[in-house]
Amino acid sequence: MKAVHVINGPNLNLLGTREPATYGTLTLAGIEARIAARCAQEGIDLVFRQSNHEGDLVDWIQEAGAAGAGVVLNAGAYTHTSIALHDAIRGSGAQVVEVHLSNVHARESFRHASTLSSVAIGVILGFGALSYDLALEALISLSKSKKS
Amino acid sequence: MKAVHVINGPNLNLLGTREPATYGTLTLAGIEARIAARCAQEGIDLVFRQSNHEGDLVDWIQEAGAAGAGVVLNAGAYTHTSIALHDAIRGSGAQVVEVHLSNVHARESFRHASTLSSVAIGVILGFGALSYDLALEALISLSKSKKS
Amino acid sequence: MKAVHVINGPNLNLLGTREPATYGTLTLAGIEARIAARCAQEGIDLVFRQSNHEGDLVDWIQEAGAAGAGVVLNAGAYTHTSIALHDAIRGSGAQVVEVHLSNVHARESFRHASTLSSVAIGVILGFGALSYDLALEALISLSKSKKS
Amino acid sequence: MKAVHVINGPNLNLLGTREPATYGTLTLAGIEARIAARCAQEGIDLVFRQSNHEGDLVDWIQEAGAAGAGVVLNAGAYTHTSIALHDAIRGSGAQVVEVHLSNVHARESFRHASTLSSVAIGVILGFGALSYDLALEALISLSKSKKS
Amino acid sequence: MKAVHVINGPNLNLLGTREPATYGTLTLAGIEARIAARCAQEGIDLVFRQSNHEGDLVDWIQEAGAAGAGVVLNAGAYTHTSIALHDAIRGSGAQVVEVHLSNVHARESFRHASTLSSVAIGVILGFGALSYDLALEALISLSKSKKS
Amino acid sequence: MKAVHVINGPNLNLLGTREPATYGTLTLAGIEARIAARCAQEGIDLVFRQSNHEGDLVDWIQEAGAAGAGVVLNAGAYTHTSIALHDAIRGSGAQVVEVHLSNVHARESFRHASTLSSVAIGVILGFGALSYDLALEALISLSKSKKS
Amino acid sequence: MKAVHVINGPNLNLLGTREPATYGTLTLAGIEARIAARCAQEGIDLVFRQSNHEGDLVDWIQEAGAAGAGVVLNAGAYTHTSIALHDAIRGSGAQVVEVHLSNVHARESFRHASTLSSVAIGVILGFGALSYDLALEALISLSKSKKS
Amino acid sequence: MKAVHVINGPNLNLLGTREPATYGTLTLAGIEARIAARCAQEGIDLVFRQSNHEGDLVDWIQEAGAAGAGVVLNAGAYTHTSIALHDAIRGSGAQVVEVHLSNVHARESFRHASTLSSVAIGVILGFGALSYDLALEALISLSKSKKS
Amino acid sequence: MKAVHVINGPNLNLLGTREPATYGTLTLAGIEARIAARCAQEGIDLVFRQSNHEGDLVDWIQEAGAAGAGVVLNAGAYTHTSIALHDAIRGSGAQVVEVHLSNVHARESFRHASTLSSVAIGVILGFGALSYDLALEALISLSKSKKS
Amino acid sequence: MKAVHVINGPNLNLLGTREPATYGTLTLAGIEARIAARCAQEGIDLVFRQSNHEGDLVDWIQEAGAAGAGVVLNAGAYTHTSIALHDAIRGSGAQVVEVHLSNVHARESFRHASTLSSVAIGVILGFGALSYDLALEALISLSKSKKS
Amino acid sequence: MKAVHVINGPNLNLLGTREPATYGTLTLAGIEARIAARCAQEGIDLVFRQSNHEGDLVDWIQEAGAAGAGVVLNAGAYTHTSIALHDAIRGSGAQVVEVHLSNVHARESFRHASTLSSVAIGVILGFGALSYDLALEALISLSKSKKS
Amino acid sequence: MKAVHVINGPNLNLLGTREPATYGTLTLAGIEARIAARCAQEGIDLVFRQSNHEGDLVDWIQEAGAAGAGVVLNAGAYTHTSIALHDAIRGSGAQVVEVHLSNVHARESFRHASTLSSVAIGVILGFGALSYDLALEALISLSKSKKS
Repeated sequence: MKAVHVINGPNLNLLGTREPATYGTLTLAGIEARIAARCAQEGIDLVFRQSNHEGDLVDWIQEAGAAGAGVVLNAGAYTHTSIALHDAIRGSGAQVVEVHLSNVHARESFRHASTLSSVAIGVILGFGALSYDLALEALISLSKSKKS
Repeated sequence: MKAVHVINGPNLNLLGTREPATYGTLTLAGIEARIAARCAQEGIDLVFRQSNHEGDLVDWIQEAGAAGAGVVLNAGAYTHTSIALHDAIRGSGAQVVEVHLSNVHARESFRHASTLSSVAIGVILGFGALSYDLALEALISLSKSKKS
Repeated sequence: MKAVHVINGPNLNLLGTREPATYGTLTLAGIEARIAARCAQEGIDLVFRQSNHEGDLVDWIQEAGAAGAGVVLNAGAYTHTSIALHDAIRGSGAQVVEVHLSNVHARESFRHASTLSSVAIGVILGFGALSYDLALEALISLSKSKKS
Repeated sequence: MKAVHVINGPNLNLLGTREPATYGTLTLAGIEARIAARCAQEGIDLVFRQSNHEGDLVDWIQEAGAAGAGVVLNAGAYTHTSIALHDAIRGSGAQVVEVHLSNVHARESFRHASTLSSVAIGVILGFGALSYDLALEALISLSKSKKS
Repeated sequence: MKAVHVINGPNLNLLGTREPATYGTLTLAGIEARIAARCAQEGIDLVFRQSNHEGDLVDWIQEAGAAGAGVVLNAGAYTHTSIALHDAIRGSGAQVVEVHLSNVHARESFRHASTLSSVAIGVILGFGALSYDLALEALISLSKSKKS
Repeated sequence: MKAVHVINGPNLNLLGTREPATYGTLTLAGIEARIAARCAQEGIDLVFRQSNHEGDLVDWIQEAGAAGAGVVLNAGAYTHTSIALHDAIRGSGAQVVEVHLSNVHARESFRHASTLSSVAIGVILGFGALSYDLALEALISLSKSKKS
Repeated sequence: MKAVHVINGPNLNLLGTREPATYGTLTLAGIEARIAARCAQEGIDLVFRQSNHEGDLVDWIQEAGAAGAGVVLNAGAYTHTSIALHDAIRGSGAQVVEVHLSNVHARESFRHASTLSSVAIGVILGFGALSYDLALEALISLSKSKKS
Repeated sequence: MKAVHVINGPNLNLLGTREPATYGTLTLAGIEARIAARCAQEGIDLVFRQSNHEGDLVDWIQEAGAAGAGVVLNAGAYTHTSIALHDAIRGSGAQVVEVHLSNVHARESFRHASTLSSVAIGVILGFGALSYDLALEALISLSKSKKS
Repeated sequence: MKAVHVINGPNLNLLGTREPATYGTLTLAGIEARIAARCAQEGIDLVFRQSNHEGDLVDWIQEAGAAGAGVVLNAGAYTHTSIALHDAIRGSGAQVVEVHLSNVHARESFRHASTLSSVAIGVILGFGALSYDLALEALISLSKSKKS
Repeated sequence: MKAVHVINGPNLNLLGTREPATYGTLTLAGIEARIAARCAQEGIDLVFRQSNHEGDLVDWIQEAGAAGAGVVLNAGAYTHTSIALHDAIRGSGAQVVEVHLSNVHARESFRHASTLSSVAIGVILGFGALSYDLALEALISLSKSKKS
Repeated sequence: MKAVHVINGPNLNLLGTREPATYGTLTLAGIEARIAARCAQEGIDLVFRQSNHEGDLVDWIQEAGAAGAGVVLNAGAYTHTSIALHDAIRGSGAQVVEVHLSNVHARESFRHASTLSSVAIGVILGFGALSYDLALEALISLSKSKKS
Repeated sequence: MKAVHVINGPNLNLLGTREPATYGTLTLAGIEARIAARCAQEGIDLVFRQSNHEGDLVDWIQEAGAAGAGVVLNAGAYTHTSIALHDAIRGSGAQVVEVHLSNVHARESFRHASTLSSVAIGVILGFGALSYDLALEALISLSKSKKS
């Protein structure tokens, strides 16, 4: 695994930018920094992106699949409704770990279902920024076990 | 409230441009003119936009929330399915009045549910262009009552 | 439009009479006063009523329809279950604007559906007493546009 | 069977009183006259009533049951939701024929279910005023076959 | 109306032929005799048929529609599932009164829905053989009122 | 707790008045007598009422809430459908124990759900008249434990 | 039990006639031979039939019921939708054992429900031709235990 | 592909025979003529049939499968409920193109589901008689591409 | 019909570009070539497009509608969820034939429903690239029959 | 009634043992003490048990049924899913009063249904430890009324 | 097949021990005796067990699977809810015949579904103790046909 | 965090013990060894357990909660149905990470829902034994971040 693409969906750009006293100061840039540091350590190229457009996420999954990169995907609200992303993962052969910052199962019922999980390698959710770290470790670990 | 953003979703650009004998001559530009006149009267800046892209609507809600503007939102077909817009309203703190030209409850059942209403201040629907006027009055009235 | 009938359903008589520190001091009489003032301005007769009986609401809708009056209807809990009120609106030809004080879509799911909306002109909800004011403006505006 | 009680529910008082060119000139009084004539012929006392109040219908079913009268019941909109009427029929032992003027199965789906049918003797629907006539014939015929 | 076709569906041939002590002695032939007598009185030709085959019922509905005959239809079990019969009634223009011997709404829930009711003139159910008599009276009465 | 209001819904007036050999001789008056005796013992004022009208029950719940009385509520058939009663309990702050004579869960499925239970203190059902006695004991016991 | 009727529904005539390398060589004639041998042993008359017509199956169930024969019924696809067969079994008093060659519960979900099971004596499924053998043994065994 | 079997289900025999001013003059014979002409051109034998009996359609699918013929199937109302036809297609190995004259998805919701589509090669619907033409072209085209 | 717009939705750009040994070598460019050849023959202008963005598809449908072009639409995953595309077809008056390469009814259940079919002329699915060819023939044929 | 068995299900052993400041100090031992005192008064033997194992609860219900003891059953989480406990109550003939400490209807929806209520004598819920006291009084009262 | 394990679930130990006049005198021991006799005849070891604990049944299925024994499983109430038993059968490779004494499809609807059937060889139900006998015959027969 | 309890539910003891050529050689003991090594490194006590009994899992969750241990929970089949485990986690205050070896969302639909996720810290699934490793890292990481 030469590269990891971290793909973030709608409204994740808002993270930590509003009322930090209430919602915490964690920002998407902060998450990117943590992931970048770990990637550097392992000599992995990192592409870290965010968009509010479902079509952008589809484009990027296809790109990652074509590049043979591992993918950490937090599709935000599109997690629950996007068949296009489901097809992009399956069609492009991208190796995807689905992550969520919050425990979606402790929130509204419309957040409990994911159209993506069935075509992901696995799912990690509920650990905040740590969800991303663990997903990266999972990709690294799986990559190493394939080589051996 | 220094500004109002009126955000229009998919296919609202078609309004009044096709078969006026049948569908009436009301255009989105006509609605904008009415709203602009009233805003001018109150010294409120107006941003009036339309897009067929869900992602644009998410971007614009975030922008309005950041600017502290009041929002009149007619999300068209995305009203019924978009969790991304729901999250954008909640995440950006935008003060949104949901409007619809037609009485959606007198149309197909798939138009009866809205993913947006629960995070809007309120909903006004069924009055044609007047729905927009009333929404603007509501924002002005709420804004004045907060000041006092 | 010579007259407006404002018809209030079950438990709206409790408004503002209990624990004002918690629930606010808005009373149904207060709403009536606001509406009466505006009607006086426009030379419109006002009938303002409340009942806990579904049958009374049906009787009053029929009466308003027969009188050719505009109707502002807050049917309270009967909004969600009453087919009798649905039929009264349709059968009497009453011109009804459905209103709600609270944003019913931000409350329990059994308050999300309305049997009345499909036969109302339109719906205005979530703005407190302002919902009634806007409904009155809608009726006045629609009445004037018919004349012209 | 000494008496027949014909009990009519909400909005049936509107029958024929509005836009006769469109909806026909059949009135509830007209139906009563037809039924009264036939009852006179058979020497049966007739009680013919209408109310928009569910509670009145419950009271009247109980009264009919206590009097041992046959009942022709057109419960209108309460047909589809009233468990109280269901219980009144069962609890009072009233012999009820459920009727409807229109073919409710050719209308909106919320008119397809009846809470009353399972405790009625039978159901007759779709024949206009003739539905009432046939229901009366059914009660007379059943009454005679019991005597024999 | 020169003719009436009475069409009976599956298992109605079993009527009264088994354990009369328990199920009563009413037979389909008995019903036919009653209907035939009344038709003779009115000078109406009678076709009275029974089949366990859904296709036969479709054939016969088409035949009745082509002949301009009134139809009394007890489709038995096919009442609850047959879209083919629904289409036959609609496609052939047959004037159909749906009947049932028993009160189907007091039986298993899978007998509560009918695919036929929405394309019938009306429905009469629960009165035993009397259901057929009443259906015939309805057809005669409707036929006479059309002539006048 | 100075007073207890026992509020009975539709068809409970029929109790014990019909076919006592079959249904038992328990009447609503008999239940009232038992409750009255126990209230007298405790020096509690008793209001004991029955109505077939949903609106009356709403009125009476509001009255009991305003009076600070404890409420024993057997809403009969309205238990399963009335949002108006739900709102009356919540809006009036009435302290309500929901009771049923029969075990509603051993009856038809449409009697299994209650719109009232979630806003009652508790529910007691299935013990016949004893359900009322136990509800009264519950109110007395809770009232005493609050004082201490 | 003097006779057993084995009744086979739609497409069972295809058994073993197509691509035997893939689907096996078991034919309906083969099953008949096994059943016939065992019947001969017990002195039981055998009627063994197949049809693709639901109406034929209804006719044959009625015939078997009238003859007091035991029935082994593999209704094929009609198992899942036929209320007519349900009624034929109940109405004719036929003693039916429902069988299936395959384990229908390990196949598509639309094969999991049977309209017939509730009126059969019992069900045997999943054992291939052995299902028929076991059904015959069950009928023989039950018949003998009745005699004793 | 030496032969094509065109199999038509219930009520398609009514096509064009009733009120041509309203429903058009297209008849099943007309469709057959068009298909026959094209088949002749390609040297393909044509079998063109219609029945109101589900069992006949099952028989004919089996026959077509055994003959290795291509099948154009318009199963009419049985499209939506017949598992027997589903099994016949799968069991016989028939190569079936499902067609519909009308756009079933623009009609009642009970016409939206098909039990047959999943075992057909493909589906063509909404083009009137042209649906049949296109289905024939599809079969010819697929047949030629197999040969090559 | 001077022009045909062929509009392809998400992930159709992946067609044939990945693991051709497994998935076949058919590419979107290949489909375009076939369609272009046929259009050239008929003197029809061809616009052939693909996007992963729902909004682009809405824009393009509007454009085609305004141009009076015939449309072949394979909306991919958006077929199953997009009300915006439904509205675009209806609002723009575009003449649309819905196509799918695969037989969607033989795949996952979430691919069985289409929000688009009810506003398309017709649907063709399951024939691979041939689906596009047949859709083009349908548009040509319909266009010619209109002229005549 | 010589004995009462109080049977407590999963997690009731946690009662009052954790964070008493938040959850109160009521323990299962405290409830047992209250019940034991009252039983002693009436000369009733008390068996008071708790288990987290569904099978233990089944064993104990059987034991109580065999002993002819009255049962107070708080099955905790198994209330909502256990058919085994339902069968144990019915099969053993145990006289069971179902109790709950909390008002389960004011909690998550998965706690609203009980598999046990339909085979219990009655249900008492929402009164905390008082629920147990009332259940015991109910058993004593019912026992005495049987003797008399 | 050297051994058969007959595994019985909750409440089957109650069989025949209570009110024999009503429920019959068949006991689990009686069933065991019949099975034991037949096993002895065939030289098959028999393990015959019952437990009210789901976990015991899982343990025993695993044990039987490890031993390569045939299994007759009557899981009682756990039949309808236990995914653990489903997994035990699949995971252990046990060859299981599911049996039921009663015809579960003629009882409450919650007894109609089985989580086990899809991983059993087959199902036999409704024949009382004979269900066990037939299941044993099935296992013997299948075992013999494998050897040959 | 002084201790970690790893709790394994039904059938996980079968892991790797059957047909290793097919299912892999990973055993529960192998997972324990990996976890034990990492715990030793961090000086964390490890309790590693498996049971097929739901009640045991409840007991152990309570024990872990009382001990203040972190919990890695793979509840196997009980994940999908156990409210008792849900309550144990919430009632005991145990800090639980839910894990699954397989990607449950890529398996049968009855494995998609979890009653446990909403009361877990987070969920990790689909990575085989690595799921356990990642869960342990999550607990360690969360524990360290609390200290700091």
